[in-house]
Amino acid sequence: MAEAVAVDHLAGERSKAQFDVDAMKIVWAGSKHAFDIADRMARLVASDPVFRKDNRTMLERKELFKTTLRKAAHAWKRISQLHLTEEEAMMFRFFVDEPAYVDLHWGMFVPAIRGQGTEEQQKKWLPMAYKMQIIGCYAQTELGHGSNVQGLETTATFDPKSDEFIIHSPTLTSSKWWPGGLGKVSTHAVVYARLITDGQDHGINGFIVQLRSLDDHSPLPGVTIGDIGTKFGNGAYNTMDNGVLRFDHVRIPRNQMLMRVSQVTREGKFIQSDVPRQLLYGTMVFVRQTIVSDASKALSRAVCIAVRYSAVRRQFGSQDGGPETQVIDYKTQQDRLFPLLASAYAFRFVGEWLKWLYTDVTQRLQANDFSTLPEAHACTAGLKSLTTSTTADGIEECRKLCGGHGYLCSSGLPELFAVYVPACTYEGDNIVLLLQVARFLMKTVSRLGSGKQPVGTTAYMVKAPELMQCKCEVQEAKDWLKPTVILQAFEARSVRMAVNCAQNISKAQNPEEGFYELSADLVEAAVAHCQLIIVSKFIEKVEQEIHGHGVKEMLQILCNVYALSLIHKHLGDFISTGSITPKQGALANEQLRSLYSQVRPNAVAMVDAFNYTDHYLGSALGRYDGNVYPKLYEEAWKDPLNDSVVPDGYHEYIKPLLKQNFGVARL
Amino acid sequence: MAEAVAVDHLAGERSKAQFDVDAMKIVWAGSKHAFDIADRMARLVASDPVFRKDNRTMLERKELFKTTLRKAAHAWKRISQLHLTEEEAMMFRFFVDEPAYVDLHWGMFVPAIRGQGTEEQQKKWLPMAYKMQIIGCYAQTELGHGSNVQGLETTATFDPKSDEFIIHSPTLTSSKWWPGGLGKVSTHAVVYARLITDGQDHGINGFIVQLRSLDDHSPLPGVTIGDIGTKFGNGAYNTMDNGVLRFDHVRIPRNQMLMRVSQVTREGKFIQSDVPRQLLYGTMVFVRQTIVSDASKALSRAVCIAVRYSAVRRQFGSQDGGPETQVIDYKTQQDRLFPLLASAYAFRFVGEWLKWLYTDVTQRLQANDFSTLPEAHACTAGLKSLTTSTTADGIEECRKLCGGHGYLCSSGLPELFAVYVPACTYEGDNIVLLLQVARFLMKTVSRLGSGKQPVGTTAYMVKAPELMQCKCEVQEAKDWLKPTVILQAFEARSVRMAVNCAQNISKAQNPEEGFYELSADLVEAAVAHCQLIIVSKFIEKVEQEIHGHGVKEMLQILCNVYALSLIHKHLGDFISTGSITPKQGALANEQLRSLYSQVRPNAVAMVDAFNYTDHYLGSALGRYDGNVYPKLYEEAWKDPLNDSVVPDGYHEYIKPLLKQNFGVARL
Ligand SMILES: Cc1cc2nc3c(=O)[nH]c(=O)nc-3n(C[C@H](O)[C@H](O)[C@H](O)COP(=O)(O)OP(=O)(O)OC[C@H]3O[C@@H](n4cnc5c(N)ncnc54)[C@H](O)[C@@H]3O)c2cc1C
Ligand SMILES: Cc1cc2nc3c(=O)[nH]c(=O)nc-3n(C[C@H](O)[C@H](O)[C@H](O)COP(=O)(O)OP(=O)(O)OC[C@H]3O[C@@H](n4cnc5c(N)ncnc54)[C@H](O)[C@@H]3O)c2cc1C
Repeated sequence: MAEAVAVDHLAGERSKAQFDVDAMKIVWAGSKHAFDIADRMARLVASDPVFRKDNRTMLERKELFKTTLRKAAHAWKRISQLHLTEEEAMMFRFFVDEPAYVDLHWGMFVPAIRGQGTEEQQKKWLPMAYKMQIIGCYAQTELGHGSNVQGLETTATFDPKSDEFIIHSPTLTSSKWWPGGLGKVSTHAVVYARLITDGQDHGINGFIVQLRSLDDHSPLPGVTIGDIGTKFGNGAYNTMDNGVLRFDHVRIPRNQMLMRVSQVTREGKFIQSDVPRQLLYGTMVFVRQTIVSDASKALSRAVCIAVRYSAVRRQFGSQDGGPETQVIDYKTQQDRLFPLLASAYAFRFVGEWLKWLYTDVTQRLQANDFSTLPEAHACTAGLKSLTTSTTADGIEECRKLCGGHGYLCSSGLPELFAVYVPACTYEGDNIVLLLQVARFLMKTVSRLGSGKQPVGTTAYMVKAPELMQCKCEVQEAKDWLKPTVILQAFEARSVRMAVNCAQNISKAQNPEEGFYELSADLVEAAVAHCQLIIVSKFIEKVEQEIHGHGVKEMLQILCNVYALSLIHKHLGDFISTGSITPKQGALANEQLRSLYSQVRPNAVAMVDAFNYTDHYLGSALGRYDGNVYPKLYEEAWKDPLNDSVVPDGYHEYIKPLLKQNFGVARL
Repeated sequence: MAEAVAVDHLAGERSKAQFDVDAMKIVWAGSKHAFDIADRMARLVASDPVFRKDNRTMLERKELFKTTLRKAAHAWKRISQLHLTEEEAMMFRFFVDEPAYVDLHWGMFVPAIRGQGTEEQQKKWLPMAYKMQIIGCYAQTELGHGSNVQGLETTATFDPKSDEFIIHSPTLTSSKWWPGGLGKVSTHAVVYARLITDGQDHGINGFIVQLRSLDDHSPLPGVTIGDIGTKFGNGAYNTMDNGVLRFDHVRIPRNQMLMRVSQVTREGKFIQSDVPRQLLYGTMVFVRQTIVSDASKALSRAVCIAVRYSAVRRQFGSQDGGPETQVIDYKTQQDRLFPLLASAYAFRFVGEWLKWLYTDVTQRLQANDFSTLPEAHACTAGLKSLTTSTTADGIEECRKLCGGHGYLCSSGLPELFAVYVPACTYEGDNIVLLLQVARFLMKTVSRLGSGKQPVGTTAYMVKAPELMQCKCEVQEAKDWLKPTVILQAFEARSVRMAVNCAQNISKAQNPEEGFYELSADLVEAAVAHCQLIIVSKFIEKVEQEIHGHGVKEMLQILCNVYALSLIHKHLGDFISTGSITPKQGALANEQLRSLYSQVRPNAVAMVDAFNYTDHYLGSALGRYDGNVYPKLYEEAWKDPLNDSVVPDGYHEYIKPLLKQNFGVARL
């Protein structure tokens, strides 16, 4: 966002750009419409003093939490006052940039009722939820069970006498643990519990449970709630009240079980409805698509900071007293930074495509077509895993790329990392997800030639016979610029790794045993498959019509950087499967180096295209104007430790040392 | 440490161990003597309530800092009262486990005077420093310059009239920035500044400068000091007062310039003494050896937590209502965890060897033998880089291995990560260091055949002619267990990568240009060389006499895990240099999998061998007794947010929402 600035230390960089930055902004945003909304919402938030966050990393937990409550309420008020649309409101909340109970209320509680509630239940609960007359959270995970949802221990026992369920926490490990918004705010929760009727266990179902009094907010009888304690980092996710919850025989009416896919009758009979359970997959696809989109935002934010600072920072290489070299000119810096820049764009486009996929899946579901669902489910699981892992690592790499100053909270990077990393764990642990992808791949491989055609992102596997044989035709570095060459290499690698795994599994005593023994290899095969998806979607994007001078060309370059840097990183896969030769690997690396030189003059403009405000970035190093040092200096003095020149504790703990009378002082 | 425990959820695991844990403890500690001291010091610290740290991540900065001052003073007092030896005192401070100004006082200020001061200067300053009548820090880095020390801007201008230096900060970027202990505590500093006599710039030299009054601790006239603000993470390095410092024409006597290697005479003449500047390398070797040793401690601590928790945590796979699978039994978990366990041991042994190297270097220096110094310097730079990078990433991986619970501060892992990561940046940015190693490697390669024999850790390069040609002889998986086979593969890869780089550089217009263009590849060659060093030192260790039932066998297994996991991770290097074939790569992976099965029953015992107290670990997940869940639950309730059931801010920011009257409330 082109703020009015007095100095612009990056003006020289900006003038070097070889493409139309404004046009790139539209591409990044998705459309002119989306750009306008994002731009307007970002400014609205940035100009509102309530949303300041520069002191967030210094506040102690209670104060921090109170400011979050204030921001959440203020955002709600502004959204109403300004009559923002749903799309605008989402953007507005995004730029407020602070995890809070509202995320779970809107992102999990409401969708759970929408997806799993009957029409009647939706009619009863949703209007209250939409108006926030009730605030809800999503209480699934327990102290003892996260990934294995089927292992949850909380019970919901039907009492036919009173037509009620008795919600109970029979063990310590059955305590609900982690739900966001639960600890201090939520009045209600969708609680997942083991349904028991007439002594029979029917597995996990969801129940709407009121937790707190709507009058004075105190927990209802039989309900124990608290916050589960400080989490990683200053500020960061500590604005969220992830909670613990225990039930002591709490009764709720029968009609508070979410009954879309299964019901309990007045008599206590359990009925599985004819609505297929796969319907629930639709919601997962939706949530994970959001996570992929968030990954591109978080990664681009970190990259924006690191690119700008790398252009400002100079170190070594002064000749004849001239200025030193900008660290962005060092090849090692480029080699770490530019693939992340490319990844940010890659994730942006695959996220866009996932949005389409979700619409597609939804329409098919409405037409009772479940055929693409397993593939879509596996694909989103894999993309969630890959993009969040890369983003988490990428943020930390960006922090290191900023040298010592990246370690200061005023760089914005430590908090970004700390707040981001749980994305690798929630909504499915990334390894557990990759194993699901692998399972799907093995199934797909086993069916090859059976007549059942692989669909969607696995469609390329039809070509398995050719792909197992084909030879990469690269002879000189520039051959690596051809999309067909890149695609073939990624497809060959992916198919061959999957087929290798399948063959090795078939050697085992039984498939389960084989899958288990080879699971580390299977995870690598799943990664290969998912990287192929991202590469192919990036290529597809670049093949579309794209407006603006030089925009398409720049994206083409980044697409190649993305693909070739992956080839370099996973060279062992590509060569050992024979998908490329060592010589071709070296040529890919050579081409990559020359692409870096093409990225270099455009790097700052490429991050300007994200259109992030200084408020959103929250970084002294990533400022739009590049005026880094005065800002770092200014921020330092705000630290509470600088309230006094002589620190608290001097008289008790420093002076006695210096005066050598610590023997008598009571240290 | 075998604490007296009521329950031991890990007893079953412990009984499975196939080796003598007590003997392994001695090997880990280095000797019976070292073990006894560590054991005793750890208990002393753990049993002293002043050193509690369970609330550290919840304290706001000022309170946190005050408790650190208290601990530092108390430690000093205890060390004196108990008449601890230097070795004991070091261990004592290590187990206090909290960064503080004392680290810089003992670790940098004192050594700087020892290494760079004349005998006279040492006699004057060291006794005061030893008694802590003065407290010092190491003020080198500035806002504008870290890696490039020669670019520092602070000036020390000799004034012949008064026989003084005038220390001055001419620009904002010349502000000293980062020195630990500077912000709030140090009374003195060794300040690095550009020496100017008679208008001539003589480059960077060190000066002892008093900063604060010894009476009331206020900064002396012309001196501005503050803390540079909050750093990454809760607790963590925020116990340290990294500081900012500006001088406004501050005068110090001429004899406060550290004059061992260069002097300024009364007349203002600059004299380079005949003591070679390389002497200063000796100190670097010492400091970096400490950092490598710390890496093994930090990594082993994270691994200890993750291994124990992975043995306690069960998820999925319950059969017939029996217990679920311990997550440590999943191959993906092993594949992420066991190489880190092996790395912890590998780093421990290479650290031990570095200690020997330092002694060797020191003895040679005393005998005026500088021949091994460049090699020793490059070697320690590379090992510092490699071990700290792996440790930083490894801690975060351990955190992820603990699933959601790893994200809680009570797991101990977030703070460990946050406090550890700057080790990748301070004492030399890891990439800058690897480039130094690469430069040394290129020099070594260029001299091959010139008659000048490569020494020390580069000695294997004499064999370059064979290593460029040799073929790996592995034919079946178990061939990978032979140390000679492993060594040859690592040597071949390393030499070939270095020679490749050298050849590519020689194609460039000039060597500097070539080095710059290829620096990303050079970094990879440097990594390959350093990994070889670690592998070879591990192999050497295992070839020594080692006591205790099964101890040597276990270390042999870990050594192979370390080497083979690196082969798998860097397969592209090994195959593309022709050091091994794809088939041999697959066999290495097969062998690795079967080694994991051998590690599995011994994993818990292998981390018990670190002998860490629960106090030192500071982790609800890593407890010795495995009694994880009650502890997590208990810790949660200590969070300040749980002080009240209804949170601060409810009336202002939650109730108005629920009651739908936020229009009138002043949100
Ligand atoms: C910040 C945050 C917010 C959250 N918000 C919510 C919320 O609002 N509501 C809610 O209900 N929950 C929430 N959660 C919980 C989250 O959904 C779980 O943490 C997540 O599902 C992972 O489960 P786990 O923690 O039990 O990990 P575990 O399953 O215990 O994982 C531990 C280790 O075991 C491995 N592992 C587990 N199973 C297998 C297997 N079958 N094969 C191989 N390896 C395996 C994993 O890879 C991992 O390395 C939140 C968590 C966090 C961190
Ligand atoms: C916690 C902490 C404690 C510290 N304590 C002290 C202390 O007590 N006293 C003290 O004096 N200092 C201290 N420092 C400062 C520390 O020594 C510097 O941060 C460190 O030397 C790195 O320098 P930098 O920050 O200038 O990084 P930069 O050099 O600015 O690095 C930025 C980026 O540029 C790259 N880069 C730089 N030069 C090159 C090159 N030639 N080729 C390729 N890439 C390059 C780096 O790899 C990095 O990615 C501390 C720092 C931290 C974080």
